[in-house]
Amino acid sequence: MPLSFEITARCPETGARAGKLHTSHGTISTPIFMPVGTQATVKAMTSEELKTLGAEIILGNTYHLYLRPGADLVAEAGGLHSFMNWDRGILTDSGGFQVFSLDSLRKISEEGVTFRSHIDGSKHFISPEKATEIQMKLGADIIMAFDECIPYPCEYEYARESTLRTTRWAQRCLLTHRNKKQALFGIVQGGTYRDLRELSVQGLVPLDFPGYGIGGLSVGEPKSLMYEVLDYTLPLLPEGKPRYLMGVGTPDCLLEGVARGIDMFDCVFPTRVARNGTILTRRGRLVIRNARYARDFRPLDPECTCYTCRNYSRAYIHHLIRTREILGLRLTTIHNLALTLDLMGAIREHIAAGTFAMFKADYLGNNQEYN
Amino acid sequence: MPLSFEITARCPETGARAGKLHTSHGTISTPIFMPVGTQATVKAMTSEELKTLGAEIILGNTYHLYLRPGADLVAEAGGLHSFMNWDRGILTDSGGFQVFSLDSLRKISEEGVTFRSHIDGSKHFISPEKATEIQMKLGADIIMAFDECIPYPCEYEYARESTLRTTRWAQRCLLTHRNKKQALFGIVQGGTYRDLRELSVQGLVPLDFPGYGIGGLSVGEPKSLMYEVLDYTLPLLPEGKPRYLMGVGTPDCLLEGVARGIDMFDCVFPTRVARNGTILTRRGRLVIRNARYARDFRPLDPECTCYTCRNYSRAYIHHLIRTREILGLRLTTIHNLALTLDLMGAIREHIAAGTFAMFKADYLGNNQEYN
Repeated sequence: MPLSFEITARCPETGARAGKLHTSHGTISTPIFMPVGTQATVKAMTSEELKTLGAEIILGNTYHLYLRPGADLVAEAGGLHSFMNWDRGILTDSGGFQVFSLDSLRKISEEGVTFRSHIDGSKHFISPEKATEIQMKLGADIIMAFDECIPYPCEYEYARESTLRTTRWAQRCLLTHRNKKQALFGIVQGGTYRDLRELSVQGLVPLDFPGYGIGGLSVGEPKSLMYEVLDYTLPLLPEGKPRYLMGVGTPDCLLEGVARGIDMFDCVFPTRVARNGTILTRRGRLVIRNARYARDFRPLDPECTCYTCRNYSRAYIHHLIRTREILGLRLTTIHNLALTLDLMGAIREHIAAGTFAMFKADYLGNNQEYN
Repeated sequence: MPLSFEITARCPETGARAGKLHTSHGTISTPIFMPVGTQATVKAMTSEELKTLGAEIILGNTYHLYLRPGADLVAEAGGLHSFMNWDRGILTDSGGFQVFSLDSLRKISEEGVTFRSHIDGSKHFISPEKATEIQMKLGADIIMAFDECIPYPCEYEYARESTLRTTRWAQRCLLTHRNKKQALFGIVQGGTYRDLRELSVQGLVPLDFPGYGIGGLSVGEPKSLMYEVLDYTLPLLPEGKPRYLMGVGTPDCLLEGVARGIDMFDCVFPTRVARNGTILTRRGRLVIRNARYARDFRPLDPECTCYTCRNYSRAYIHHLIRTREILGLRLTTIHNLALTLDLMGAIREHIAAGTFAMFKADYLGNNQEYN
């Protein structure tokens, strides 16, 4: 088995669970947030810094790596771990999300998808088989079945057709996959239609994937609708297997996802907004380029113990972001990732201590923007 | 005394000397290279990383800091050291070089210089008094007299007029300066005219500055001419005071400067070319974005022990630079600074061991581009 999962604690009041996910590159404590390293690098960070922050697994984007530097080159380097100097866990997505979100003119058929590169417009074709082959070359610990991520809103008829095709594609991925060190996860689709989510789960569960992604959420629907979909979908999935909510990563959504039984998350949110100068704090967000921070010599978040908050002031980071200095992007990225990973650590501790429900209410209560 | 300097070793075959420069922020071993932190940050680096590389003193640009975030704000933060979280040495230039190089329409008078900001075109006036006041607020350990850096080539008559004015300005800086923790250095000008360099030294030495900058070099003249100016200028300066060759920082110029008796250097060269993907190695330069490095899994410089070379390959850095990833700029900056600072460390050791002349010949011989 390339992967084993054990649940070590459960919240008595919510669906939250804590566990251990054993991979070829170490054990991951769940619920976990995976920082996104799109192009074989979590933007602005070294692997050493990611370890210092406590990251146990990161995500790589198959679409981007397929285009640059190419899967064969990564394989030649000894796989993605070796290429990017990261010896902990890696999960690669299937490329499906990018193909559907970056090229509005892509052509989809039963066989696969034809799309154009966002870099040079060149034409490419990816099938479930090809997506799996690429991911085998990249060598991540967890790889994802090739799926179609349908938009929100989406006509029922199209959603149904797409969901059934994604299930057939998942089967083809499974038949292609033959790397014993990698775990291949299926992806539940179905949009915001309850019967389609059920249909998706019914198609995937018999294939006995070692874990399941929940796709097609956080694509523009209201948060309440996302929570509703999780509420009726998660109970359908096998208890003992990890569930990964794809593309979700704001503090409130992490807490709500965990409360419904999600074990894994990834999102560009903390790192992307950091580079734009938006700072997450335990009391809400702040936009560091605002003039009010020019002479504010406090740390970004006085309750934070990250490298940035221990050493640098809001005034200094305000200056760096305004002058477009690289160090500004680094310091804000470190802080936002630290806050997110610290939140996950606190979540795990509170699940183990049986106090998660209270912790969640407190955390959301302290964050005015979530009220 | 804010500064004391002792010479601890001399090369028997060249003018090279090794020494110790004691400042309010620690002792600096000379000859030293100062990484440039224009806007209160050495681009792409944290202060922690600079320490790991062995940087003992860095340079800040008064012109840039005056415009953003402003000297009063830096003073409010407790000075530049505290603002940027750097507890080792800092030298600030006077702003003169930027005023003359960034605004071709500046107006110069005996009183000072009127110029426009490169950021928003706003009009500003800097005099020797104002440049000194600003630098007192910034609080560096070593500050520089306000000077005019004349271009190359330059008419004799203008060069003479400017050189004499720079000397009068140096006097006014000295009269303004009243920070006992800072050392104020004079700057020798005179272009490439031997009699004007003599005139400059004759005017400045009686003012008894604790150290002297050699300005107006590395501004477009051939290297051989720069060496010639150093050959006739340095013997005129007092033996026991530090000499700082401003704006110089390629390996060959560092070695040639040291051989002529220079103790301090600064230059954007290693960091600026790094961000452009040009890598300095002990065997010459390489342009990492070239296709030949796409599958080269060796370190940037196999003889280097820096963080970049210990952990990442040319192929990976080629990928990062091609995809414009921030980590690429970081890794190349770390390496180029490590190479430059390591070179200075080797220079100091060889001066102490009496083997500097041989080391210099070997180093230049191994670097084909310097042959």
